Amino acid sequence: MSFKGQHILSVKQFDRDNIQYIFDIARKMAPYASRKKRTRVLDGAILGNLFFEPSTRTRVSFGCAFNLLGGEVRETTGMESSALSKGESLYDTARVISSYSDVIAMRHPQAGSVAEFAEGSRVPVLNGGDGANEHPTQALLDLFTIERELQASGQSIDGMHIAMVGDLKFGRTVHSLSKLLALYKNLQITLISPQELAMPDEVVSALDNAGHRLTISDKLEGNLNADIVYQTRIQEERFPSKAEANQYRGKFRLNQEIYTRHCKSNTVIMHPLPRDSRQEANELDNDLNLNPNLAIFRQADNGILVRMALFALTLGVQDLVQDYECAVPWYTNK
Amino acid sequence: MSFKGQHILSVKQFDRDNIQYIFDIARKMAPYASRKKRTRVLDGAILGNLFFEPSTRTRVSFGCAFNLLGGEVRETTGMESSALSKGESLYDTARVISSYSDVIAMRHPQAGSVAEFAEGSRVPVLNGGDGANEHPTQALLDLFTIERELQASGQSIDGMHIAMVGDLKFGRTVHSLSKLLALYKNLQITLISPQELAMPDEVVSALDNAGHRLTISDKLEGNLNADIVYQTRIQEERFPSKAEANQYRGKFRLNQEIYTRHCKSNTVIMHPLPRDSRQEANELDNDLNLNPNLAIFRQADNGILVRMALFALTLGVQDLVQDYECAVPWYTNK
Amino acid sequence: MSFKGQHILSVKQFDRDNIQYIFDIARKMAPYASRKKRTRVLDGAILGNLFFEPSTRTRVSFGCAFNLLGGEVRETTGMESSALSKGESLYDTARVISSYSDVIAMRHPQAGSVAEFAEGSRVPVLNGGDGANEHPTQALLDLFTIERELQASGQSIDGMHIAMVGDLKFGRTVHSLSKLLALYKNLQITLISPQELAMPDEVVSALDNAGHRLTISDKLEGNLNADIVYQTRIQEERFPSKAEANQYRGKFRLNQEIYTRHCKSNTVIMHPLPRDSRQEANELDNDLNLNPNLAIFRQADNGILVRMALFALTLGVQDLVQDYECAVPWYTNK
Repeated sequence: MSFKGQHILSVKQFDRDNIQYIFDIARKMAPYASRKKRTRVLDGAILGNLFFEPSTRTRVSFGCAFNLLGGEVRETTGMESSALSKGESLYDTARVISSYSDVIAMRHPQAGSVAEFAEGSRVPVLNGGDGANEHPTQALLDLFTIERELQASGQSIDGMHIAMVGDLKFGRTVHSLSKLLALYKNLQITLISPQELAMPDEVVSALDNAGHRLTISDKLEGNLNADIVYQTRIQEERFPSKAEANQYRGKFRLNQEIYTRHCKSNTVIMHPLPRDSRQEANELDNDLNLNPNLAIFRQADNGILVRMALFALTLGVQDLVQDYECAVPWYTNK
Repeated sequence: MSFKGQHILSVKQFDRDNIQYIFDIARKMAPYASRKKRTRVLDGAILGNLFFEPSTRTRVSFGCAFNLLGGEVRETTGMESSALSKGESLYDTARVISSYSDVIAMRHPQAGSVAEFAEGSRVPVLNGGDGANEHPTQALLDLFTIERELQASGQSIDGMHIAMVGDLKFGRTVHSLSKLLALYKNLQITLISPQELAMPDEVVSALDNAGHRLTISDKLEGNLNADIVYQTRIQEERFPSKAEANQYRGKFRLNQEIYTRHCKSNTVIMHPLPRDSRQEANELDNDLNLNPNLAIFRQADNGILVRMALFALTLGVQDLVQDYECAVPWYTNK
Repeated sequence: MSFKGQHILSVKQFDRDNIQYIFDIARKMAPYASRKKRTRVLDGAILGNLFFEPSTRTRVSFGCAFNLLGGEVRETTGMESSALSKGESLYDTARVISSYSDVIAMRHPQAGSVAEFAEGSRVPVLNGGDGANEHPTQALLDLFTIERELQASGQSIDGMHIAMVGDLKFGRTVHSLSKLLALYKNLQITLISPQELAMPDEVVSALDNAGHRLTISDKLEGNLNADIVYQTRIQEERFPSKAEANQYRGKFRLNQEIYTRHCKSNTVIMHPLPRDSRQEANELDNDLNLNPNLAIFRQADNGILVRMALFALTLGVQDLVQDYECAVPWYTNK
């Protein structure tokens, strides 16, 4: 099994075996990400970090993951500063930029654009989100987080109970995650959303065909006693009026009181971030910050591990990381 | 005395002892900043350089200071590209970004925002300016410059005569510098500004309580025979009309002729930069560029040293810099 | 012959000897650019990459070239984020930024601005394009590409036949390239453009005075049997109406059918990029992508070599690159 020279464009590329392989490599990245050890395995390599759509979190996460393997990052942000805005084809941009870089991470607002770009690229391209279409590294880090959180209580993904909450219609992350969950066995899946924002039929069918037990509801109450609760934002722009949206949002908020009343004692709470902390949204209350089962920041931490693994794999150095360890003073000092 | 793991948020954190300690470390950074020697003491470390408000000078200065210690820089500029604009709290942003970085430098337009961010951060945060509130690294580099310039003529900060000129009401740098000056002894301080732009009472009181001799004036003439003249910009937007502003500005400009007539032969001229060179502003004339006592570019140079010192201190490597020296060919060639 | 400490501002600086010297160094950069070898000759050096005008290609090319020599890059993009927008002079900006960097690459929309900046800089400045004026690294990479492509068939620049096509009036690249071609001998030069967009008299005179044989035409047919065809974009904004522009553009497009009918079997096609792939422009059709004589992406590749050479030369390390080679694992793996 080799990812060397491969693009990472879609969750559809993966089966259980290569997901487990990626996760094995990701776990090996932990001491480097936590600054216990330092490696320079990608010394001299250049990441072309192309974010044609604004992003802080994902962009910085890709960049830091590459730095942590010893490589350099050259970054492009925004659309207006790019030749694309002057009529250059994605193919031409890809041919040129890929001759400067050793691997490319790319976000672009248009669905399918990253795959089109990849056709012109001479180096591996990692999809960092192409509009409403795909964001495969997010799906992988979500699944990796679920596995790690469940392991803490001796569980596995097979057989778990996950509830997904909020805007299941437009939420890119719950669609991609669901496609990966269809690879696993015997899950109990609860889909909680306003009827207007229900999970698309296609995704429901995929979960159904995988043999998972599905419950569909528009109420939080009685449906949160899951191993994992994956919360998302309800976007007010999907509703006729802000007032109506706020009415809905009120019913799907999660806070410590609701957690205590409706969740299990060790239900893990996830969210793709950013969570909207403004009064009218507030889908995940700050009073949960003290709850040790709030895994949202561990998700972000895991994103570094998964992206380090994907860089190492696509550049074919996954087995060399340890060989290029070097001592640095401030690690031992930290 | 240790800054390891500490945030640098406000000039109020400092006393004379730890200022002298910072300055000692800053002086040791000189051979690395001037490319006489190279150190890799921060190899593998990542600076999160977050500038939510435009800046070239300060942003690049932080970034270069970190590179000169051997570290890598991941940068975010502008507000619109950040999750903050989607309603994410500063706490959440801090939790996530600080899990990618080893230290963070941050500028943000809102007073108090950097301190709020620091509460969520798992790594040291250096305030690069939070609106009208604080810009502590600027105050430190100003004071460091004063000490270095005075040393050249055998003087010390205690007992010196400094004149501050221009917009003393809204100028963040003169407020912060004044707070630091209150830690020293027996200063003569001349405050020169239009009455509309006088130094705030709170700052005057602090200087007064420190036992310094204060002179307050709205005229340059007869008030410039100081050891240090710290010039600032008079901002036309503070006045009812541009014409009125220009009338005022005319009275507070400094050029070589005024210098020769009113300053001492070795009066040091400082300015926080950028100076406005447009005809109508021109608070510090270009004909002073040949004056060896114009210290404005040495201030910028010193900014690198002070920021290198603060990075080394907050990461706890201040005594290891020399141990990780390495030879590079182009230094000896330079 | 030494470029150490020199600015690279204009093609007028060059004669045949120092162009050949730059090209010799550029050729030596090939194994590093193609990741066959790794050098750290510029370890610890900082490039100030100042792009006050949007650019992806040129900006990233400068940055990657510097990384490939082992140096770090600190970048500034856009005008609004710069002190220049607050009235700071180019001299002041240069004094400050050059104290942070070891070499500067700069693009700015205003003709002459980069030379003005260079006067204040304490380190070498490479002009990355100053408005309609100069873009010397593009001219060098174009000439370097011509030399390399001709060498493949045993030819040299002296005596070759080049056709330049399209907007010869406003095209900065064909002006600069022509100035360099005036240094060579016995060329046949065909200038093909709408009469409204003819090559300026000054450039024509320079080519004429060099003793080259000139043909001027407004037709592609019968004029393309050259060794090199250098295509450029016809910009619709130069014409009274879009319709009129499109009429003209139709006559100067190049595709595989026209190539087969009018070019030699090994005519090399060049273009400064980006090429406009939108239907109404389409000056160089995508069906040429399979033509091995389409050199437009090799031009971009050569840009890295030429910029690496200029960095090595201006920092005086051109003879040390090999001494600082180091082994990296993923090169041998690639």
